[in-house]
Amino acid sequence: MGYKVAIAGATGVVGNEMRKILEQRNFPVDDLKLLASERSVGKKLLFKEREIEVEKLSKESFKGVDLALFSAGSRISLKYSPIAVNDGCIVIDNSSAFRMDDAVPLVVPEVNPDDLSWHKGIIANPNCSTIQLVVVLKPIHDRVKIKRLVISTYQAVSGTGKNAVEELKKQTEDIFNNKEIKSVVYPHQIAFNVLPQIDVFLDGDYTKEEIKMVNETRKILNDYQIKITATCVRVPVYISHSESVNVEIDRELSIEELRSLLDGSPGIKVIDEVKKSVYPTPTYTAGKDECFVGRIRKDDTVKYGYNLWIVSDNLRKGAALNAVQIGEEIIKKKLL
Amino acid sequence: MGYKVAIAGATGVVGNEMRKILEQRNFPVDDLKLLASERSVGKKLLFKEREIEVEKLSKESFKGVDLALFSAGSRISLKYSPIAVNDGCIVIDNSSAFRMDDAVPLVVPEVNPDDLSWHKGIIANPNCSTIQLVVVLKPIHDRVKIKRLVISTYQAVSGTGKNAVEELKKQTEDIFNNKEIKSVVYPHQIAFNVLPQIDVFLDGDYTKEEIKMVNETRKILNDYQIKITATCVRVPVYISHSESVNVEIDRELSIEELRSLLDGSPGIKVIDEVKKSVYPTPTYTAGKDECFVGRIRKDDTVKYGYNLWIVSDNLRKGAALNAVQIGEEIIKKKLL
Repeated sequence: MGYKVAIAGATGVVGNEMRKILEQRNFPVDDLKLLASERSVGKKLLFKEREIEVEKLSKESFKGVDLALFSAGSRISLKYSPIAVNDGCIVIDNSSAFRMDDAVPLVVPEVNPDDLSWHKGIIANPNCSTIQLVVVLKPIHDRVKIKRLVISTYQAVSGTGKNAVEELKKQTEDIFNNKEIKSVVYPHQIAFNVLPQIDVFLDGDYTKEEIKMVNETRKILNDYQIKITATCVRVPVYISHSESVNVEIDRELSIEELRSLLDGSPGIKVIDEVKKSVYPTPTYTAGKDECFVGRIRKDDTVKYGYNLWIVSDNLRKGAALNAVQIGEEIIKKKLL
Repeated sequence: MGYKVAIAGATGVVGNEMRKILEQRNFPVDDLKLLASERSVGKKLLFKEREIEVEKLSKESFKGVDLALFSAGSRISLKYSPIAVNDGCIVIDNSSAFRMDDAVPLVVPEVNPDDLSWHKGIIANPNCSTIQLVVVLKPIHDRVKIKRLVISTYQAVSGTGKNAVEELKKQTEDIFNNKEIKSVVYPHQIAFNVLPQIDVFLDGDYTKEEIKMVNETRKILNDYQIKITATCVRVPVYISHSESVNVEIDRELSIEELRSLLDGSPGIKVIDEVKKSVYPTPTYTAGKDECFVGRIRKDDTVKYGYNLWIVSDNLRKGAALNAVQIGEEIIKKKLL
């Protein structure tokens, strides 16, 4: 009594994670199709102790498929997801292709599950750095209104993909072996360095990633009054994005109230015992499902200000897990 | 016609840098004493092609010395700098021991050189993350008033010292060799990780480093109305601290005005051609003298808001260079 599921981009870092999470969460899969480009065809990947051969993604791939998880970049999503929808398939798309499309819901199940009700075949999975942010902001915004956010990020290379993970590894090794460093994926060395650029530069000299954080956060929280400014920075970390978030709200909330509000909310885990040096870090959160918050402090430079440190696995909650959770929510809501 | 100069803590990362910078800038040194703890005694270090033997720091070390640069931690500074002053020596102290002492000037030569006039023997060298910040803020604050700063830092391990540099190196190697990771200097793994903790935790769950940034910035700019909140984070970088700084000022300043204001000011270099991915990074700035600013953008979430990305070599301008420049300024002002 399960579903025919396809993963488009099955051999990428997020696609691999999607397959693992479908298995870990015992998603009702009757049949799993692993789709990728020509050069991965024939590769065999394990799902529930069974080897599945990777097939070439084509226009015919989605016939008879109930649910397709896309994580192969915007170009592939734009080309193939309308075909999949036309074949009666629901598409959960991890690219940025449809996120800001008014006809496409952008969903984080803990935050705006009801937006699934108006989907027309495609549901967009938000950007990694946005997902962990909105999971933590949601209970705050429900209790008191959030007025302004100043965000600086510390983002892992796996957010860029496999090549970036390899580039960090290779550059690190080359430095130890006194070899010349080559930068191909990033415009500068990433090993033992930080780069204040994620994605391309757009208007006002903000990067696409910074603008995504602003626009996607507002769409998911369905509040276009929230003021958001972000600086997105790549750091030499493999997995998990960290965010230093300064939050201004519209009324008083004690630190104790804020802490217990966050701790009891879905998808969030508070890790905040600073006297014991207990706070979330990338290596601690990698492989885990929750959005972790620590360093919860009052910021007295504005009337109602707070500082938060938010860390989550960018491949899991930031991408693959959220996509699978959207699938679970669709089933729960009997939309599939 | 030079001076007798001593470096206390001569074998540490900053002490080594002090010796090199005295030579590079041709500081008028007639005689250089290298002082350190027992275990470094007898070690020979090069200064102007001459080997100098490290001596044990003692109460007798400062007799006949004109200028002493201290970088051996607060405990040593508290114990020996009054002795040095008593012996007629001027002390430039890189520890945090005297920075917030009302009787001790806290000086960045590009920012508040005139505070040197009221010194009583000890001059404090500010914290690394503060120096690069105030150099960049000074021309802005002179032109328009700065109202509020929200800062997130990306700080290099050399700010902690030699052991931390070794720990990052060792952990990175151990990860490549599949060996167990040991964390001694930091409470958690620093290789391929980021830690939202620099120094110990104090009131309000802010770290000492975060509180230093607030208090030292206000003292150096001599403006206690500026509101500052900071989150200080250690990153797996060897040299150069980066800072994401959100600045709110009290009147309009166009991006062009801000850029040319910064570019023409002492100690600052603007590196900001984003379409070519040109912006300051730690590896680019390591070994250089200036405070580099890039990613200069308008932040429209407040009336007069801006985002800046500031990077500088934490061992040079953030420590040793600033100390030597204080020495140069003292000579220029005929205070020595």
